Amino acid sequence: MARQRTEDTAGGAAAVFGPSAVTEYLEQVVEQLRDQRGGAPSDSIPALAEADPERFGIVIATADGHVYAAGDADEEFSLQSISKAFTYALALEDLGAEAVHEKIDVEPSGDAFNEISLQPGTGRPANPMINAGAITSTWLVPDSERDLRRDRIRAAYSRCAGRDLAISPEVLAQEHDAGDRNRALGYLLASAGIIEGDPIRALEDYFAQCSVLVTCRDLALMGATLANDGTNPVTGEEVFAPGTVSRVLSVMSSCGMYDDAGEWMVRVGLPAKSGVGGGIIAVLPGQLAVATFSPALDRHGNSVRGVLACERLSQDLQLHFSRTARASRSTVRASYPIDQSPSMVRRNAEADAVLAEHGTDAVVVELQGDLLFTGAETAIRTVREVALDAEYVVVDMRRVDEIADYVLPLLARTRAELREAGRTLVVVDGGRVSRSVLEGEPPLEVFPSRAAAVKWVEDALLERHGGPGCTPSRVVPPDSELLSRLDPEDARAVQARTVERSWRAGANILRSGQNFAGIHLVVSGDVSMSVRTPTGERIELQILGPGMSFGEMALGSDGKQHVTLTAVTDVTARVLTPEALAELEEQDPVLALRLWKAIARDGYERADQQWRDAAVHASATDW
Amino acid sequence: MARQRTEDTAGGAAAVFGPSAVTEYLEQVVEQLRDQRGGAPSDSIPALAEADPERFGIVIATADGHVYAAGDADEEFSLQSISKAFTYALALEDLGAEAVHEKIDVEPSGDAFNEISLQPGTGRPANPMINAGAITSTWLVPDSERDLRRDRIRAAYSRCAGRDLAISPEVLAQEHDAGDRNRALGYLLASAGIIEGDPIRALEDYFAQCSVLVTCRDLALMGATLANDGTNPVTGEEVFAPGTVSRVLSVMSSCGMYDDAGEWMVRVGLPAKSGVGGGIIAVLPGQLAVATFSPALDRHGNSVRGVLACERLSQDLQLHFSRTARASRSTVRASYPIDQSPSMVRRNAEADAVLAEHGTDAVVVELQGDLLFTGAETAIRTVREVALDAEYVVVDMRRVDEIADYVLPLLARTRAELREAGRTLVVVDGGRVSRSVLEGEPPLEVFPSRAAAVKWVEDALLERHGGPGCTPSRVVPPDSELLSRLDPEDARAVQARTVERSWRAGANILRSGQNFAGIHLVVSGDVSMSVRTPTGERIELQILGPGMSFGEMALGSDGKQHVTLTAVTDVTARVLTPEALAELEEQDPVLALRLWKAIARDGYERADQQWRDAAVHASATDW
Repeated sequence: MARQRTEDTAGGAAAVFGPSAVTEYLEQVVEQLRDQRGGAPSDSIPALAEADPERFGIVIATADGHVYAAGDADEEFSLQSISKAFTYALALEDLGAEAVHEKIDVEPSGDAFNEISLQPGTGRPANPMINAGAITSTWLVPDSERDLRRDRIRAAYSRCAGRDLAISPEVLAQEHDAGDRNRALGYLLASAGIIEGDPIRALEDYFAQCSVLVTCRDLALMGATLANDGTNPVTGEEVFAPGTVSRVLSVMSSCGMYDDAGEWMVRVGLPAKSGVGGGIIAVLPGQLAVATFSPALDRHGNSVRGVLACERLSQDLQLHFSRTARASRSTVRASYPIDQSPSMVRRNAEADAVLAEHGTDAVVVELQGDLLFTGAETAIRTVREVALDAEYVVVDMRRVDEIADYVLPLLARTRAELREAGRTLVVVDGGRVSRSVLEGEPPLEVFPSRAAAVKWVEDALLERHGGPGCTPSRVVPPDSELLSRLDPEDARAVQARTVERSWRAGANILRSGQNFAGIHLVVSGDVSMSVRTPTGERIELQILGPGMSFGEMALGSDGKQHVTLTAVTDVTARVLTPEALAELEEQDPVLALRLWKAIARDGYERADQQWRDAAVHASATDW
Repeated sequence: MARQRTEDTAGGAAAVFGPSAVTEYLEQVVEQLRDQRGGAPSDSIPALAEADPERFGIVIATADGHVYAAGDADEEFSLQSISKAFTYALALEDLGAEAVHEKIDVEPSGDAFNEISLQPGTGRPANPMINAGAITSTWLVPDSERDLRRDRIRAAYSRCAGRDLAISPEVLAQEHDAGDRNRALGYLLASAGIIEGDPIRALEDYFAQCSVLVTCRDLALMGATLANDGTNPVTGEEVFAPGTVSRVLSVMSSCGMYDDAGEWMVRVGLPAKSGVGGGIIAVLPGQLAVATFSPALDRHGNSVRGVLACERLSQDLQLHFSRTARASRSTVRASYPIDQSPSMVRRNAEADAVLAEHGTDAVVVELQGDLLFTGAETAIRTVREVALDAEYVVVDMRRVDEIADYVLPLLARTRAELREAGRTLVVVDGGRVSRSVLEGEPPLEVFPSRAAAVKWVEDALLERHGGPGCTPSRVVPPDSELLSRLDPEDARAVQARTVERSWRAGANILRSGQNFAGIHLVVSGDVSMSVRTPTGERIELQILGPGMSFGEMALGSDGKQHVTLTAVTDVTARVLTPEALAELEEQDPVLALRLWKAIARDGYERADQQWRDAAVHASATDW
């Protein structure tokens, strides 16, 4: 599912309309926070100490791979502690959560990041975001001559960023020279039996991962990979499994911002990780990542402008976790009796009367959005309330985006409850509802279109409440809807001018675009009326049975068919051909006038029915 | 906005169908975890030590106030440390976040809850969820003779639970007797200048808040009040401001589960608070709260079964924060050229031709769901891309639930960009888009219905691309759409049988339900055709201008009008009355036949247009 990475500032809409309002907003934030000159770059190594404190960039990458960049988005700097989150993820992927958890706990330590302390009892580092835990993560990543740990780590970062990232030899050399405190931690871990064997090689790899060069743009895409459940949204590559990402984000949320994690959670409310190189990533799961870069750090080791920018974005754009996990209030899109939106089947007057009386015994509930728990709970509550007064409930799930696994059993259970109380649940679905989950006796009815589901329900209502005349298998022309508008003698006179035609199931009867080919009175069988939409899709408009007529719609202005008619079953019809109609007009203008009045009334009745349907749709759905 | 609290196990659907699948699921979890008999009740006071460890309840309360309960949902127990979250909230409400922050930090301590330690430097408790912080919160709540702190605190809890909660005198007496360690903390806080004055009274009130009796059901509703931004969803009362709730939930997420907070965030991923009484609340902001009760505690002081139940629910129902903050993938509901969904205005052939040629120059973008940042970003991106090929973009926002404050400026900016590039943005909205925000020259066009917006765009297209014949102000009957199907002589003959009628703007011309009153040929003015839906709403179907006809639809089966026609402006029409039509049929059946053929064709053309519109709607919206 790889997509083109789209960039707001290049090509497409940006070329015509200029940068998006989102980019302009980010540029404003960069401008407004540029004056914040507190803090100083890290003095731990010369490469960091020499960083230009004026540099400042903010990038947002969405979980579908669109990038908005402002300020110094393409300046390279070293990843430093931000690497901890990604190496921890790699260790989780390689060894599984349990094996990693035996070596590294997930509790906030309350201490500074480079504290020389391990948990009493287990000797474990408190979490993977302090140096002791991070060095352990690095050590956990497998290392072999054929697959060097250092390459493995760099490759994982590169897959997250979507480009080949490099280790800075200069930064690495300085990290090596300044690494004694981390060496002390490494040996402490070895003495506690957490790291097994000599820690030196793992320490060097840890220095190397801290020395990977990234831009703010890279960071945003690395964050977007986490926001997108571990799959890089641009390349489509799954770098980490969703379970890994969930654990990493959880640890980032409690331990990601050094000893400022609590304050960060209050002010920003996003899982995040910062590095003394001046970078910060913050992730809104499922939606986006924010990356910032500015080298001057506060006393916690977090970028001063970066923290302010993240806080500003979180407030302005309401990204705080306490604001974002909101239920969609539109899970139940609409709910209405089926007689407000009948099937495409044209019924006779007797059937129409039955359906008019019993139409409210069946209700359509349309769902939309994600059926996660809250959505499913609302949906089930609505279905149960609706079923209090209805025999049939049609649940239209075609607009549902994501169906959580546990929702199908809840639906199955709801269906069973309803069935025990004599109600029938029918599902409209594009194919994602697993029939096996919803099995039972009788099997659940699942239909690909609402029209098909409503037709099934109408048939069931007619079988239960109607007489045999509701669904006749054979209707001779004088009893057809069109000719029954005439008196019986006139109807027989028109019938005498018709000829019989038959088609096999599947045959095309009339094609869209062909000229008026006569008025067709269906004697037996079912005929489907359909159109092709501008996008080339074929849509079924109606199903016509015995007693219905077709072909007369071509009498509209240009004398052309605008719909296609196909035999669903074997079909027999009586046809009043164009020639026979012309002959009738000439030979018996009074009868012809009566027939034309009947045709006009039939046409207006259909138009009127359409208007009323449109009005109901408008009402039921705000259309 | 108070609503009826609804309970799954009482009345309504539950009476007919039995408990909901959600309740049954919770009952299964209770059954399956009942065997977990690890841990032991707190031995800190006799009332806790004597609790029946078999008790176990789980309750979910949704952010709209619906309750699902399983197990011992109505057993009372003491609130204990869960009180800390609510008293902290009350202190924040009373004093503001800044004043409270001066006294209590928000950082996880890494220590046990009753640790006797304050932060170096400031002397502040690390956070409000350890005892030192909680006692400080209690002290911060104002206390006066007329408004006793203890009553004030109990009243706040009661408003959250939606019922009057009581302090257990027995528990309070035992807390008082066992309170020396907390007294030590109180005096330590006083010595550090955090608590000013004698801490004893605050300590007694702290013991009292820990002794408030709640049920699991109460806890769930207290949690639902937090999930609902501080407003009790059942009573509708705002107990806390949203900003207060955000801060409380943030602190709960990093410090709520004693020294198990990191593990909790990994396994459950919800802000939560537990108490040694055996209760836990966990909150999914905007959606729901989970409450559990079971007295046996683990070594951290958290309920063993409660933790397992929360973990189970989080996994099964995907409540973990890394899963819930997902973008709706359906923000852009549909996007299509306006010629696929034309306005209700019936145009003449010349205008239709212009619109057919230029219909794709205007595009409708329908939005739905919440326009928080990600939704707005996607919407703006779509509008900009669509505008690359279109002169007009109609943004239909009527299905948008929540519009974040910052979205309107982004839209305004996007509109300005488009205008600079010669594009026009038109908004359809139910009244929530602030015109002031979208002001500019010329002012933004905002319409209450899509039909009105599309009509405006069609008129603009006709003005730009069409001739004056597209929108004639006066059409005499022989040139009307209906009579122009006849040859000129026949048309004049029919016209001779018509009479002229006029109506003032606003007048009812024809009412739904009245008998066929003749064929009306509009000479000048605009006529609105509307219906009343089953729910009583009036829907405008079409606007008819000069050259159009109406009234003939009553020729459908029962000879009744099914639509209402109203004069939008002053209207003049020529009317062929029912009597004149009958006379024509008798006196000149050949001309009558030709007229009826024209009527029939007009009717079928309208029906056909309706079919095609329905097909396009089906295509554009999956209808």
